[in-house]
Amino acid sequence: MIGIKSIASYVPADGIDNYAQGAKFAKDEEFIIGKIGSAFLPRKEAAQETSDLCVEAVNALFANNPDLKRESIDALIVVTQNGDEEGLPHTAAIVQDKLGLPTHVAAFDISLGCSGYVYGIYAMKGFMEAAGLKNGLLVTADPYSKIVDPEDRNTTMLFGDAATATWMGEDAPWLLGKSKFGTDGSGAPHLKVSDGVFFMNGRQVFNFALLKVPAHLHELLDESDLKADDIDAFCIHQGSAAIVDAVARRFEDAPVDKFIKDMVETGNTVSSSIPLLLEKHVMDATWKRVAISGFGVGLSWGSAILYRP
Amino acid sequence: MIGIKSIASYVPADGIDNYAQGAKFAKDEEFIIGKIGSAFLPRKEAAQETSDLCVEAVNALFANNPDLKRESIDALIVVTQNGDEEGLPHTAAIVQDKLGLPTHVAAFDISLGCSGYVYGIYAMKGFMEAAGLKNGLLVTADPYSKIVDPEDRNTTMLFGDAATATWMGEDAPWLLGKSKFGTDGSGAPHLKVSDGVFFMNGRQVFNFALLKVPAHLHELLDESDLKADDIDAFCIHQGSAAIVDAVARRFEDAPVDKFIKDMVETGNTVSSSIPLLLEKHVMDATWKRVAISGFGVGLSWGSAILYRP
Repeated sequence: MIGIKSIASYVPADGIDNYAQGAKFAKDEEFIIGKIGSAFLPRKEAAQETSDLCVEAVNALFANNPDLKRESIDALIVVTQNGDEEGLPHTAAIVQDKLGLPTHVAAFDISLGCSGYVYGIYAMKGFMEAAGLKNGLLVTADPYSKIVDPEDRNTTMLFGDAATATWMGEDAPWLLGKSKFGTDGSGAPHLKVSDGVFFMNGRQVFNFALLKVPAHLHELLDESDLKADDIDAFCIHQGSAAIVDAVARRFEDAPVDKFIKDMVETGNTVSSSIPLLLEKHVMDATWKRVAISGFGVGLSWGSAILYRP
Repeated sequence: MIGIKSIASYVPADGIDNYAQGAKFAKDEEFIIGKIGSAFLPRKEAAQETSDLCVEAVNALFANNPDLKRESIDALIVVTQNGDEEGLPHTAAIVQDKLGLPTHVAAFDISLGCSGYVYGIYAMKGFMEAAGLKNGLLVTADPYSKIVDPEDRNTTMLFGDAATATWMGEDAPWLLGKSKFGTDGSGAPHLKVSDGVFFMNGRQVFNFALLKVPAHLHELLDESDLKADDIDAFCIHQGSAAIVDAVARRFEDAPVDKFIKDMVETGNTVSSSIPLLLEKHVMDATWKRVAISGFGVGLSWGSAILYRP
C-alpha cells in the first residue's frame, strides 16, 4: 500500500524580522508571537522561482534518501497557486527538467492553497495506484512573497516562503487512513488575488476555520471509530498562532498541546505547513496515529488520519 | 471499479468563421480544412468565465443523467490552465458554488493542457478510490480565446473554446486500462504565456507530437499485450488536422481512418478535445476497446486504453 516514505523541506535562510515589521504597524512582541506566531518570515531570493524552491526541497529529499534514485521517479505533483509561469506551462514540467528527472515521469500541478497537502497525498496515492506507478514526489511550494503587499497589515506579517517534498511509495512507515474533504466556493472572495495582489479577509477566514475544523476533525474520528485519545498529535495548518490555539480549544476533547504549534521561524507557509510539521515532529516519532487538517483558500478544507502500519 | 459513466459538453454557438480568418492571412480553404482542420472556431462570450463554461457542461451532464443528483457529487476536478482568477482561488471552488454542489465536495484544479484529460481520468479514479468517494465530475475547460492574439497567425486559426464534463463512478460502461505518461520540461518554452499572450512554436510542437505519440501508443499496446487490430478506434488530441493525419500515418499498423478526426466545428479545444471525441463517437458505440492520447504544453503526454467491461 502506498504511503509516506520520507519528507524533506527547503526554508530560505533569508527573511524578515517580524518583530521589526510588527513595530512598523504598532504591533508589540506579544502580538507578533502570541497572535501571529512567527518571529521570522523566510523569504526566497528575488531571482528564485517557485520551481527553484521545489528543486531545493527535492534535492534535500534525495540527500536524505540515498536509495531513492532519480531514474526511479515516475510521478511528480506540484501543489501551488503561485507557479513559475502565467498559467501555462505547469510548474511540475519545469521541475522535471531542472531536476533531470526521466521523461517517463507523469507530472502535473494541483491548484490548492492551505488544504493542498491533505488533498495532495490522496491524489498522489490514488493516481499512482490507478496508473501503476512506484515512486511519487509530492512537492508543495506556494511563495506568497510573490503576491503579498508589504504594506498590507492583514497579510504581510503572516506568510513565509518554503517548499517541501514528500516521497510516496510502497513499504512506507506512515500510511493514509480515512479522509474527509470540503469546499465552499461562496467564500472564495475571502482569499484571492486581484491585479497581482493578495487580499484576505482575516476575520472571515478565522471564523471559517473555527466553525469548520474542530467539527470536521470530530466527524473524521467518528467515521474512523476513533476517539481523540487514539490520536497522538494533531498537525493542523499553521494559519496563525491564534487560529491553531482557537481550533485546539474549540476541539475540546484533547489537551491543547496535542495540537502541534511550530511556526515561530517559518510563518504560514500555505500548503507546506503540514508537511513541515510531519517532517519535524512525526516521521521519526514513536507515535502510532496522527490527524492532519488543512483549510483556507477556496474555501477548501481536508482532514485525514495517518497511521503506522 | 470506477470508470467513465457519461460525458457531456458545452460548445459555444458563437464563434469565428475560420475561412474568413484564413483569408486575412492569405490562407485558402484547402489549407484551413486540410491542415488546420476547422472551418469554425467556437468562442465564449466576453462575459463568460471559465467557471461558466464548466457549469454549462455539467448542467448538460445532469440533463442527460436524471439519476445523477447534485447532492451525490463528492469529487470535482477542473482541468484548466486558464481559470477564472489569478492563481487563487482555484476554479473548481467557484464551480462548486455556481452549481450549488454540496459543501462536502472534494474540489481542486489540475494544471495541464492538451494531455490533461488522460491524466485527469486517472487522477480522478485514483483520488476517489484513495478517499472512498462515489461520484466524481471531471471537468475540462481551457478557453484559449483568453490568451490567443488574434493577429498571431501561428495560433489564432487553431483554437476553439469548449468545456466537457465526465461523470466517473461505479458500474460504468467504460473502464480505464493501462496508461503511460511522460513529461519533458526542456520543451516548456515551445508553448507558454508571456505578458498575457500565448506563444507557440508550431514546428517544434508538430515534431514533438510526431516523434513521441506513435511510439508511445505502440509501447502502450505492447505493455498491454494488445495489437493495433485489438483497438477499435484511436482518439488522439485534435491539435490540428495535420497533426492527427501525420500521427496516424506514422503509427503505420492501423488504417488511418481508425484515428478519429473531428474538429471541423470545434478547433483545437485543448483538454476538451479527447472527451469531445469520446462523447460523440465512443460512449454509445458497440466498440470494445479504444486508445486515447493527449500531448502538448509542458511538454506533457499521456496515452491510455479504455475498454468495455
